[in-house]
Amino acid sequence: MKLAILFGGTSYEHEISIVSAITLKNILQNENQIFIFLDFDHNFYKIDSENMFAKKFSDGTYKKERKLNLIKGGFESKGIFKSEKFTDFKVINLIHGGQGEDGTIFSLLEFHKIKTISPNREASTLSYNKNLTKIFANSIGVKTLEFETLHIRGDRKLQKLEFPVIVKPLSLGSSLGVSVVEKIEDFDYALDTAFEFEENIIIEPFIQNVKEVNLAGTFTDKLVFSNIEEPQKGEILDFETKYMDFSREETVAKAQISESLEQKLFDSFEKIYLPYFLGSLIRCDFFIIDDEVYLNEINSIPGSFANYLFPNFVDILKNIYIPTPHQIQTSYKYINHIQKAKG
Amino acid sequence: MKLAILFGGTSYEHEISIVSAITLKNILQNENQIFIFLDFDHNFYKIDSENMFAKKFSDGTYKKERKLNLIKGGFESKGIFKSEKFTDFKVINLIHGGQGEDGTIFSLLEFHKIKTISPNREASTLSYNKNLTKIFANSIGVKTLEFETLHIRGDRKLQKLEFPVIVKPLSLGSSLGVSVVEKIEDFDYALDTAFEFEENIIIEPFIQNVKEVNLAGTFTDKLVFSNIEEPQKGEILDFETKYMDFSREETVAKAQISESLEQKLFDSFEKIYLPYFLGSLIRCDFFIIDDEVYLNEINSIPGSFANYLFPNFVDILKNIYIPTPHQIQTSYKYINHIQKAKG
Repeated sequence: MKLAILFGGTSYEHEISIVSAITLKNILQNENQIFIFLDFDHNFYKIDSENMFAKKFSDGTYKKERKLNLIKGGFESKGIFKSEKFTDFKVINLIHGGQGEDGTIFSLLEFHKIKTISPNREASTLSYNKNLTKIFANSIGVKTLEFETLHIRGDRKLQKLEFPVIVKPLSLGSSLGVSVVEKIEDFDYALDTAFEFEENIIIEPFIQNVKEVNLAGTFTDKLVFSNIEEPQKGEILDFETKYMDFSREETVAKAQISESLEQKLFDSFEKIYLPYFLGSLIRCDFFIIDDEVYLNEINSIPGSFANYLFPNFVDILKNIYIPTPHQIQTSYKYINHIQKAKG
Repeated sequence: MKLAILFGGTSYEHEISIVSAITLKNILQNENQIFIFLDFDHNFYKIDSENMFAKKFSDGTYKKERKLNLIKGGFESKGIFKSEKFTDFKVINLIHGGQGEDGTIFSLLEFHKIKTISPNREASTLSYNKNLTKIFANSIGVKTLEFETLHIRGDRKLQKLEFPVIVKPLSLGSSLGVSVVEKIEDFDYALDTAFEFEENIIIEPFIQNVKEVNLAGTFTDKLVFSNIEEPQKGEILDFETKYMDFSREETVAKAQISESLEQKLFDSFEKIYLPYFLGSLIRCDFFIIDDEVYLNEINSIPGSFANYLFPNFVDILKNIYIPTPHQIQTSYKYINHIQKAKG
């Protein structure tokens, strides 16, 4: 079955979605694929492979490509003389951030009966909102760091946490609006920075040099794990560094960690993934503290689909299990019953 | 601003959505309103007021009405000779159950930049999935009964709960698939019944004659509460009884409860509603045990919008606060930066 790579979208991560899609094009070069771009006006465009370069989008010339409308089972391009339908594919939802990762795109595609590799609505809510991620993780026995949330119109005070802390907008990825705060004098500025992006923010303890490991995975006919990576990085990655990170293509070396720790990571991933994340390929970012595993974040649409973590990425991508929506019909039994009762 | 009542949808509660919409028509009779029906094939139809009767839908003659397509800002009916656009309204999402209450409809409307009174995606996930409802409620300091979840392919054993218990599909409303189980011999049959509807089920203690109260509310320029109702009922309402319940129009009398208990109910409602449920009108069903409040369920689109609980329903409905989605634009700063770096 053909793959359709859907990218762009109206989030702060619009541009890294473009970079992600170009990276995926390089990796999938021999596969049967099409590219669909979603712009800021919520219009879809079919982009031919040879036009998949960044400038096409930044200079607006993508608008000369064929515009697509959603139809049942796929997309349609309407011309004055002829229309063309594009169906029979699996859409890879590669729209990072809002819209892609909050469940909007999944809903649009599901409503139009289009198969998609994407976090579903529940998975989106649980991963996109960092507060809900933590209460969900804790409910299934996966540890997280302590946290507090603040609202833009609420008190600007910490309840229990002590400095240094890390301040993040509640739902954004790619380090946007994130600051490390060492002392109370810098707290207000960090809050302002985060509130620029969102009305709700989350605050966690900041642990200098904490060991961080990333593990991606999905479900084909069984759970499939990627290599475990220990990302090399400074204090926190800024947007630009992460941005370049989204274009990685080379498979990374495995992190040097013990077998027992590896098993703890696999166990935590499994608890998180099943059943809510079926149909998606996710990357979980964990902290390791005193040989214990703490979930930091769930990336429900990781940059360039975390291809660089998998030794056999293309094979896995083509075989991701996609649940079939439950089909419901009605016989209008109750309405008919009422009609009958009325005589 | 005109109201558009969107009803039908592809859930088990399709028929009660029709009844709900007809009820709302009777209540809103003097208001500027249109009706939009979503059928099982995912087609939208504009239904004129005089055609708003149940048989229109059960006998399929709604198909003779004008078909609508989603466009930016509203709907369009395309004719051979002329097309007509319907815009400038607030959609009341009155699609009960899946699609309406799981976030799909909200996503469709938001993507098309249509204002809607509806639970948003996060609110939908938190109310539609009874497991997530409980962990969310507990995280904000609202008590619930204990619970366990089972999966269709998992063990069929209780971990901690003791009989009698109540067995429910994880996400359905209107008592579908729900059984009270008094003893272990009847447990398997109850599980089979619930698994008919869903792969995941939730089990809670069943407390004979527990006091149940319902409280609806929304946010206009402040939180607005309905009357508190103590529903009169038998053990559990069957689908048909609840179905008739969805056509209620008369305002109910207030339940006889103490002021301190009333305050506890208001406090619990506020914790639940803000900020996730902004933009919706919800009904929370609580248990009262030893003067303590326990959340049972959140109905994010209650039957006939719980009109019968509000003394001044139409006024409130017209003034529900609808959050404006955050608008994001891009300057393609990072892509331009890379282009420049490349030379």
